[in-house]
Parts: sequence; C-alpha cells; structure tokens
Amino acid sequence: MSENKEFVKEITKMEDDFAQWYTDVIRKTDLVDYSPVKGFMVIKPYGYAIWENIQQYLDKKFKETGHKNMYFPLLIPESLLNKEKEHVEGFAPEVAWVTHGGDNELGERLCVRPTSETIICHMYAKWLKSYRELPYLNNQWCSVVRWEKATRPFLRTSEFLWQEGHTLHETQEEAQEETLKILKIYEEMAKELLAIPMVSGLKSEKEKFAGAEATYTIEALMHDGKALQSGTSHNLAQHFTKAFDITYLDRASKLQHPYHTSWGVSTRLIGGLIMVHSDNRGLVLPPRVAPTQVVIVPIMQKKPGVLDRAYELKKDLEAVGIRVELDDSPNYSPGWKFNEYEMKGVPLRIELGPRDIENGVAMVARRDTLDKNQMELEHLPEMVSELLEDMHQDMYHAALEMREEKTYTVKTYNALVESISEKQGFYKAMWCGCEACEAKIKEETGATIRCMPFEQEQLSETCIVCGEKADKMVYLAKAY
Amino acid sequence: MSENKEFVKEITKMEDDFAQWYTDVIRKTDLVDYSPVKGFMVIKPYGYAIWENIQQYLDKKFKETGHKNMYFPLLIPESLLNKEKEHVEGFAPEVAWVTHGGDNELGERLCVRPTSETIICHMYAKWLKSYRELPYLNNQWCSVVRWEKATRPFLRTSEFLWQEGHTLHETQEEAQEETLKILKIYEEMAKELLAIPMVSGLKSEKEKFAGAEATYTIEALMHDGKALQSGTSHNLAQHFTKAFDITYLDRASKLQHPYHTSWGVSTRLIGGLIMVHSDNRGLVLPPRVAPTQVVIVPIMQKKPGVLDRAYELKKDLEAVGIRVELDDSPNYSPGWKFNEYEMKGVPLRIELGPRDIENGVAMVARRDTLDKNQMELEHLPEMVSELLEDMHQDMYHAALEMREEKTYTVKTYNALVESISEKQGFYKAMWCGCEACEAKIKEETGATIRCMPFEQEQLSETCIVCGEKADKMVYLAKAY
Repeated sequence: MSENKEFVKEITKMEDDFAQWYTDVIRKTDLVDYSPVKGFMVIKPYGYAIWENIQQYLDKKFKETGHKNMYFPLLIPESLLNKEKEHVEGFAPEVAWVTHGGDNELGERLCVRPTSETIICHMYAKWLKSYRELPYLNNQWCSVVRWEKATRPFLRTSEFLWQEGHTLHETQEEAQEETLKILKIYEEMAKELLAIPMVSGLKSEKEKFAGAEATYTIEALMHDGKALQSGTSHNLAQHFTKAFDITYLDRASKLQHPYHTSWGVSTRLIGGLIMVHSDNRGLVLPPRVAPTQVVIVPIMQKKPGVLDRAYELKKDLEAVGIRVELDDSPNYSPGWKFNEYEMKGVPLRIELGPRDIENGVAMVARRDTLDKNQMELEHLPEMVSELLEDMHQDMYHAALEMREEKTYTVKTYNALVESISEKQGFYKAMWCGCEACEAKIKEETGATIRCMPFEQEQLSETCIVCGEKADKMVYLAKAY
Repeated sequence: MSENKEFVKEITKMEDDFAQWYTDVIRKTDLVDYSPVKGFMVIKPYGYAIWENIQQYLDKKFKETGHKNMYFPLLIPESLLNKEKEHVEGFAPEVAWVTHGGDNELGERLCVRPTSETIICHMYAKWLKSYRELPYLNNQWCSVVRWEKATRPFLRTSEFLWQEGHTLHETQEEAQEETLKILKIYEEMAKELLAIPMVSGLKSEKEKFAGAEATYTIEALMHDGKALQSGTSHNLAQHFTKAFDITYLDRASKLQHPYHTSWGVSTRLIGGLIMVHSDNRGLVLPPRVAPTQVVIVPIMQKKPGVLDRAYELKKDLEAVGIRVELDDSPNYSPGWKFNEYEMKGVPLRIELGPRDIENGVAMVARRDTLDKNQMELEHLPEMVSELLEDMHQDMYHAALEMREEKTYTVKTYNALVESISEKQGFYKAMWCGCEACEAKIKEETGATIRCMPFEQEQLSETCIVCGEKADKMVYLAKAY
C-alpha cells in the first residue's frame, strides 16, 4: 500500500537514529506538540488519555492504601525554598521566578514549584499537634516547573505533570515501610498497566533526591539500551521536619520531629512506554493503558448492512468493557485507516466487510505481532477480551526478554569500558561504595549507577574500579 | 453537651456576621487553610474530596458529549497575551509574571496563565487544516493565577482550580449550541450534585468575559442574599480565531475562520455550596457531593459485639454504594464525635450501642433537619439510601425556597434603592439595555446586573432607571 510506504518513510528507523525515531513517533501520532514556550510541551488528547489511565490506576491504589489528595499553592516564597540546605542547592538553579504581580514588583520572589516539600512542610508544621493525627498520608496531582536546558517531549521538559506524595510518620521504620510500599505500587503499575519490567533498588548518595536520606527508584531499559528513571520514592527521615520545625507530642507527651517520605511519578512514564514497546511503524500501546483498545474498520462500508453490523459489534465489545472506536469516515480508504491506527498503536484492528458478515467472521489484526486471524463474529467479545490479555502478557515478556538481552555482567573495569563503547544496556558490576569510583565511571564511560538493586548477586569480591573490597552490586547504564 | 456549646461558640452566628461565619466554618471544618503566599489557599483533603466529586461528575458529562482532555503550558509569552485587545486589557493587570529561569533573565516575560485562550488559539492555528477535523471539543483541568487584592478562600483567591473548555466549530450556530449545551450541563450539575438552584442567562456587555461575543452565566443566591457567579460559558465568535489567524478549508475549499467557545467552573463552587446550605453549627453537605455520606458512631464501644456489629453495618452500607466512615477512636467520646461530624456536615450519623443491637435498631440523625429516627438494622442499607436521596431533594427545595423568599420584583428605581438598602437578594427589574443605566445602578446601590435570564417576564414597559422603553428583565444583586 502506497500510504503505508509513505508513513513508514516519515518515521525514521530506530536502528538509523533512535532519537529521531522517537521524535518522529511522538509527532506523527498526535501525542504531544512543541509549544511557543521553549522546553514546554502541549499534551494533546491522545497523549493525555494515556496519562489519565495512569492517573486512574495510581489514584485508586493510593486511596486503597489510605492516602488522600489535597492541593498546595503553585508558588513558593524564596525564603521557604532556602530552608533545607541540600534541597535549595539542588533546585534553585532550575526554578522559574515570579517577580511581579500585575504591575507591582513583589517584596519577595516566588518560585514556581519544582516540587512541594518546602511549602507542604511549612503547613504540616502548622497543623500537626499530636501522635494521634499520624500518619499523615497525602498526595497531590499537579504540574511542576524545572528550567531545563536540553528538553525532549515527555522525557525531560521544563514543565511536566506528576503526582507527589508527602507523608509523616511516628518512626523511621514506618517511614521506610511507606517508602518501599509506594515503590512497590510503582513497580506493579509499570508491570500491570504499562507492561514494563522494572529494576528497583536504592540510589547512590550522589544520585539521590536533594534533601533525602535515601532515594529508591524504578529503572526501565529502553530499546536503545539506555535506562530511564521512571519513578522515585524518598525516605526523607527528619531532614525537612527538623528544618521546618515540624513537631508533635508523642505517646509519652514528649515533643518529637516526625519522619517523612515523598514520592512521585510523572508524564515521563509515557516516554518510557514509547521507547520500550514501539517500533518502526509507530506506536505500540499495551492494551490496558491504550486510550482505544480496538478499532473497527468497515470495508466497503456503503454496502447495505455493513455499518449496521459494525455498530452492533462496537456495542457488543463495549458491553464487555472494551474501549472501542469505529472509523466510518467516508473521506479515507480502509488502507489509509489501517496505517493510521497501526501508527497510533491501537492494540487490535477489526476489519469487517460484506463477505465477512455473510460468513459470520471478522479479521482481527494484532498491533504488536502484526498477526492477522479470522475470528467468528459470534464469539468476538470474549475472544477479543482474551486476546487483549494475551497481548499484555506477551508485550511484558517481550520487554523483559529485550532487557535481559541487553543486560551484561562485567567483572573488570576494562570489560565495562570496552563493552559499553560498543553496546548500550544495563551493566551489572560490583562497587565499593565510594564516590571517587562512581565519578570515574561516569566521567570515562558516560554511565551512571542507576541503582543498587534489591536483588543482589555477589559477582566478585572487589570493586571493578579500585579493586578494593566490594559488597554492592549495582546496575550501570547511560540514562535519559 | 458541653462540647456542643463550645463548638457553636467558636463559629460566629451568620446573622451576626456572615463573613466571619463563613471564615469560621471553613477553618473549623478542615476544608482549606491560608498559605504563606498571600491570597493563595491550601485545599486540605476534606475540601479537595468535594472538588474531586465535582470533577468526576463533570468529566463524565464532558466525555459523554464528545469532549477530550488535554494539557497546555502553565506559562504564556507576553506577546501571545497581547494579541486579542480586549482580552489583554481585561487580564494584564492581574497576572503573575515570570522574569527569570534559574539565574538567567528571560528575553520575554511569561505570564502564569490566568486562562488559556491565547496559548490554545496559537496551537489551534498550527493544527487546524480542514473542516473535516471540526468540531474541536477539548477541555483541560488545571490551576490558574489571577493576582487579586482582596481574597477569600474558595470565593476569590489568587490561584484556583478549574476546568476550561475550548472548542472550535464551523458555524456561529454550532458555537452557540455548544455554549448553551455546556451552560445546561453546569446548571444540571448544580441541581443534581450540589442541590443548588441556579438562575441562568446572558451577561451584559459590561460584565461579559474579556474578548467574548457573549457570556452566559449560572448565578446562585447565598444565605446572605448576595449572588455568586458560579460558572460561565462564552461564545467567542471569531474574536480570537481572527486575532490568532486560525483558518481551515471549508466544504467549498475556501479559507475560513472557525467559531469558538470557552467555558469554565472552578473551586469557587465549593464556596457557593457552603453559603447556600450550611448553618450556625457548621457545614451541611448535600449527600451526592459529600466525601463521607454516613458516619457510624459506636456507643459504649468497649462492650463485646458493638464494634463487630458496627463494622458489619459499615460493610452493608458500602455494599450498596454508600460512602461511609466508622469512627472507633477511643480518644474521643460519642458526644464529641456527634459534634465533630455535625460540624463537618456529614449528611447522616448512625448511632449504634449495645441496647440498639439487642433491639435490632439504630438511631439515624439527619444533618440538614437534625431529625433523629430509630430504624431497623435489617433494612438500614435501603432506608439510608432512600434517606440520602430524600435529603438531596429536600436540600434543593430548601435552597429554592430560600432563593424565592429573597427574590424581589421592583418596578421603580426608588423601590430598588430603598429595598436593597434594607435587604439583600435578587431584584428582578426592567432595563433598557444602556450602559449608563447599568453604571448608575452599580454606583448608587452596589448591585450589578447578574444576568438577563432565559426566563423573561415583562414586568413593565420601561427601564427602572431612565424610564425609556425596555424589553429586558434582569436580575440585579450585590455579588461576591
């Protein structure tokens, strides 16, 4: 089909130029567009619908685990940002400053929130009185601004949408439990909704959140072998609660600082979704997160009965909870539509023409494998439901296999340097824990410690860099 | 009960000082708090849960009518804001300006969106090509900033949460149909969800949105007789589409400017909800929008079997879809709890003690009427469901009655001046349509034209101000 060639021609092959492939895919598929403000993106309805599915999944999980939503101001006074030393050093260089309200210069500059620990802690200090009110389990959905120099839609933008959880607890153990509980929710969301396998673990001191005691992360591997930090959960211990003087009367009527966590995932996940699953024809969306799960394309739709039957089928599929679209536009050919929905990553396409109807069948095409199978119309709703489930599992396993193929073990520094110059991926290696070795790896290979995974292996006894005793296995990779 | 007195004492009586009553109610009931940034509020979980119920209701209606969500940047370049003359005059005095990103001064100032017509039109101009793509039916949920001098939580704040719809159409008729369709959705939402009767109609030229051809509004009457503009829907005709040069090829392949609408409601609705329904004991929340619809307070909860039966009841109520809480905290007495949930406006309270359980009954107390009735435990789920429905209807009718009591008809200007100095309310009056008469009313009485309602009555033949021929009946009121 000529349209097919034309479309494929417009998307650069990922083998030729992965970055250009990514840009082509997101532009051609109406997920997002560049805005007139440098580094800021417009999320178009098709992209936003993916975000809504992520929101819905997580919001339910957060509420089931006792969290409530709230909303804090967009603007934060400079003096509040300055209260936690490491935090301000981490964020001040990349915030947007509001200096005027209407025609008046403000007495104090306000920053557009890059994250909300400071203003939330200021309020928590005002509210919290007694241990009886603990734990505080709160979350907010909002946008944040971080002034980035080099930006790419979804992956790194000067504004992005996210959720940020902020909790307080009586003990460090409870804070740690919360930190890990949320990381688990993120990991499961990636697996169950996005069909993405994650490596989860602890960030190094250098890579942790500005102001955290410990940062935990979920890391995904992209098609090009680069890693994407996809969500983080921070145990903030008493760093902020002391800086903001949050206190409460404990069970023994003594004044205490509570323990604190924060955690977030963002629209960055959509970038990961694309770079894990999609191909040279365009998007491939896992069924559970796809805005449209099935598209029905009628063939020879002017023939009597075709559209009627197609609409009936749409209803039958909707009745079993499938998100389905029927494209009966007379302006485009079926061939054009096939390519359009293939490019947009709709998991299943159903082709239905007069002869199919006569024979009581329809043609069903899978986006991930491009397999086409004739199926009986009568049993289509159940069969399509099953097929969508199968696709989810298959896509997860394909992503897992891809990651395993691109995961390497290195026992010497030379092996790392040589291998990573040829092929990107996760490199498992032993590390002594010192910053000098970490810095050397980054400087000389471009790779960073993505995390110390929970699932440890003792690959050897010594650090690949300095040869000293090492008991930490880390995942190294170049990253987005 | 002593706690009761104490709490009532802390909420100022609305008859004594309505503004203070409002402030007391929102502060005492944990809906909202003041933030360290002047004019910006923190929406606490209990307040935010009300907003989530409003969002859920509207988002469903918008999607059922073909609208899709999207997200546009928070920051808008000054040059874009300047493109529509009336718009910039209306908004420029009240925007917050970002002048620095990190340490660098920006080449062009960016305003924090006060509303998004300008940046959305800029993108629509880039996207729209053909009539085949029309209508554009889009919406976004976000926060906006308008630098206000005098602020009050929910009613007028420098930042608020809202939704803003932005649509494009082939004809002015379709744009008008959309404008009114959305106004109808807002009006129904107020009635069906918030139990608030609205007067709906057209704004005067002076009161319309900066840049609109016509603004339609829903107006509610508060307990103190002042009006609250609760939602607006604008027919923007081609004002912005010409200013931003949005064009498309029509059915005859000619270049045309599309017709345009925008519309929004905000967290201001929560302020209205409070000032229509609540009383001197605190909040009274209509059941459909209440975060918690029923609270179960166990009596003598240490007695064996009481808590077990209470938890069983909770489950039974949840099974029929009721949002229910059980307060089994040992730190507070039942009396304290009664007052707490009464103040927080929970629609129904169920008291359950050992003797009740023995007799197979529970005491059910309504928040709106304060009536208490014994009901059989066995039938409680159905009876409570019915009671919640009754409450919704009763609260709507009480609000309607209150509004009717405070709605007056005046046939002369003197009658208006005299009456409004004594009692606030909606004043129906004839108006010739000229700005001079409108300005005189505002200057001399403080009342403004809230709208020209769709339901017109010909009260007389002449304008109450100038005595010239008049064919428009308007609603006048002092307003928030």
